[in-house]
Amino acid sequence: MTDLLLRNVRPYGRAPVDVLVRDGFIATMAAGIPADGVIVEDGMGGLLLPGLIEGHTHLDKTLWGLPWYRNAVGPRLEDRIDNERAFRAASGHDAAAASRRLAEAFLASGTTRIRTHVDIDTEAGLKHLRGVLETRAALAGRMEIQIVAFPQSGLLIRPGTDALLDRALMEGADLVGGLDPCGIDRDAVRSLDVVFGLAERHGKGIDIHLHEPDETGAFSLDLILERTAALCMQGRVVVSHAFCLGSVPVARRDALLARMAELRVAIATTAPASRPVPPVAVCKAAGVTIFGGNDGIRDTWTPHGRPDMLHRAMLIALRNDFRRDDELEAALHCVTDAAAAGCGFTAYGLQPGARADLVLLDAETIAEAVAAQPPRRLVVANGQVVARGAALLS
Amino acid sequence: MTDLLLRNVRPYGRAPVDVLVRDGFIATMAAGIPADGVIVEDGMGGLLLPGLIEGHTHLDKTLWGLPWYRNAVGPRLEDRIDNERAFRAASGHDAAAASRRLAEAFLASGTTRIRTHVDIDTEAGLKHLRGVLETRAALAGRMEIQIVAFPQSGLLIRPGTDALLDRALMEGADLVGGLDPCGIDRDAVRSLDVVFGLAERHGKGIDIHLHEPDETGAFSLDLILERTAALCMQGRVVVSHAFCLGSVPVARRDALLARMAELRVAIATTAPASRPVPPVAVCKAAGVTIFGGNDGIRDTWTPHGRPDMLHRAMLIALRNDFRRDDELEAALHCVTDAAAAGCGFTAYGLQPGARADLVLLDAETIAEAVAAQPPRRLVVANGQVVARGAALLS
Repeated sequence: MTDLLLRNVRPYGRAPVDVLVRDGFIATMAAGIPADGVIVEDGMGGLLLPGLIEGHTHLDKTLWGLPWYRNAVGPRLEDRIDNERAFRAASGHDAAAASRRLAEAFLASGTTRIRTHVDIDTEAGLKHLRGVLETRAALAGRMEIQIVAFPQSGLLIRPGTDALLDRALMEGADLVGGLDPCGIDRDAVRSLDVVFGLAERHGKGIDIHLHEPDETGAFSLDLILERTAALCMQGRVVVSHAFCLGSVPVARRDALLARMAELRVAIATTAPASRPVPPVAVCKAAGVTIFGGNDGIRDTWTPHGRPDMLHRAMLIALRNDFRRDDELEAALHCVTDAAAAGCGFTAYGLQPGARADLVLLDAETIAEAVAAQPPRRLVVANGQVVARGAALLS
Repeated sequence: MTDLLLRNVRPYGRAPVDVLVRDGFIATMAAGIPADGVIVEDGMGGLLLPGLIEGHTHLDKTLWGLPWYRNAVGPRLEDRIDNERAFRAASGHDAAAASRRLAEAFLASGTTRIRTHVDIDTEAGLKHLRGVLETRAALAGRMEIQIVAFPQSGLLIRPGTDALLDRALMEGADLVGGLDPCGIDRDAVRSLDVVFGLAERHGKGIDIHLHEPDETGAFSLDLILERTAALCMQGRVVVSHAFCLGSVPVARRDALLARMAELRVAIATTAPASRPVPPVAVCKAAGVTIFGGNDGIRDTWTPHGRPDMLHRAMLIALRNDFRRDDELEAALHCVTDAAAAGCGFTAYGLQPGARADLVLLDAETIAEAVAAQPPRRLVVANGQVVARGAALLS
């Protein structure tokens, strides 16, 4: 593996250093490292960040790079689920090509690790999983992709889905997904027992979509926490969205957060502007890991989103009324270190020993990077330059 | 004035036409207009929009284009007001240069009309107003700027401010501003009487910042509506923010909206993600004009915002959970026709007789333009090409 010396960069906006990369890892960070025959890149005093992390998306759903999809879908969760299944059946949606286009756009903007939920249902079977597995294989060595086997159309309400999830975990999915055990599956206990059962059998972690509002969501969350404790899954469960934590009474919320901190259950937030959300600062203060994701990007669910985690950090900041520099740093944390901790991505960061996933951009401070999202001048993945001037190298 | 023929463009994404511009106005829109010696621009099938409108900003406050401002300001409205006044006094902030930089960035992204609030206070006097008047003069013929004389530091609580507002209206301000008559001025009746008195004396419209939440805001809004009726100011009053309409009980909200529709009092919304806001669809259905603005852009109040009204339309869409194409068209409406109606900008639109303010970009539909905010390929203001490839022509 070619070694690399990145000269004159400011890690997190601090004083300029050189970064020596050996065998895909950061070897040394110091001023005036001798070049010693390695390839040298001049960072020209740019701001250096670690590879960004997308903690919750749906690579398989995207229509990124395709002609505009005219959205005329009804407003309920069920409308969107049914519309998507029908659209994909009719259009012959190609999850391999779609996920590849989006993953490469993410890489060009400096995202080197992704947790993606992939639809598993009784109509499409494992088709979308196989597509995303193809993309994962194609990008191996440049990007790390975690796959959650996700019962988007429901688990109990579509018999046979559990067997498909089981099969997905054998074929390469890394985590078991779940979806609104009350709201969609209508039987929270049985739904969660299936999810946790699968996780236990396969020795995998869990990441559950929980859109349920208010006390319904809190009730489901209680059941998730009970099972996390009973099965000793501390540190291996993520609750995505957890909107209920943005609307239940403060005392109820804080009791739930205390229990989540104790069980090391993390939260993935997309920080939507139109719903109650778990407040980032409160979760962090309670000791709960909270990290960021886009959710779907330009698909039949939503025309919004972009494959740029600094853009998502900006939206997290806006949703949480983060304005001060230290607050924007907390927003960046959601798409860097907190996401690594929450998803279990290892060898992460800007220190010797970390995998050399590096993002260079022109900004004075982290806060400016979050607010302005300047183009990525250089992206290094696994020690190799993979993008320059916001364009992927072939 | 040089005439212009813009060939092969799709107004609002409809079928391609040519647009003939004469003397700064749209003369004809049709297929196959003969060139007849005028300058021809090939639109190459791009999406054509009318010049975008910024309905609520603060050009005088911005630090756009300056070194990053490290924000460590406290969270209360009063903290931000006091910090800004102190910062400007210490830094010798130049409102002429600052507003010029931001206004030009707006123009490059296709914004041809702006309503800006300008701080008037007993420390700075009319300094900021004079700066923005300079910018308005410099950009005359390319951009239309409405100025609201805005008592940012309070009106009653800083004696002498009313006399300064009076003077500002004589020196070129177009509208009288106001600020939280309960929350800041602590005497809503007297505060609003001063504002409406100034408007009556000068024959000017009014645009009042109303951040007050819940029933306090609704109470102030009642008083504003009473005075609008009493002074026959129908169609000449705007309430900016009106956060209370996002949180009072629905029956109270709907009664207020019905009264606003009757008195033709419009709402300017910045659609912040972190606060209750007036719901765009509900306001429109009630017959109330609601339009969009950025509020401050990269200043001592906030690091956020950008001088691109498609970006603001996207944030309005996100805040209102707008996903369908027709909903994104409603978001665009907030920064085009609704803003023209709400601010009273005339000769607006994409039809013969309208001022030739034209924005050309590569998008299939309006929805795509809002979701993706592609660079502006061409901007025409008053019939003249003023920007190309997202860069202002000198």
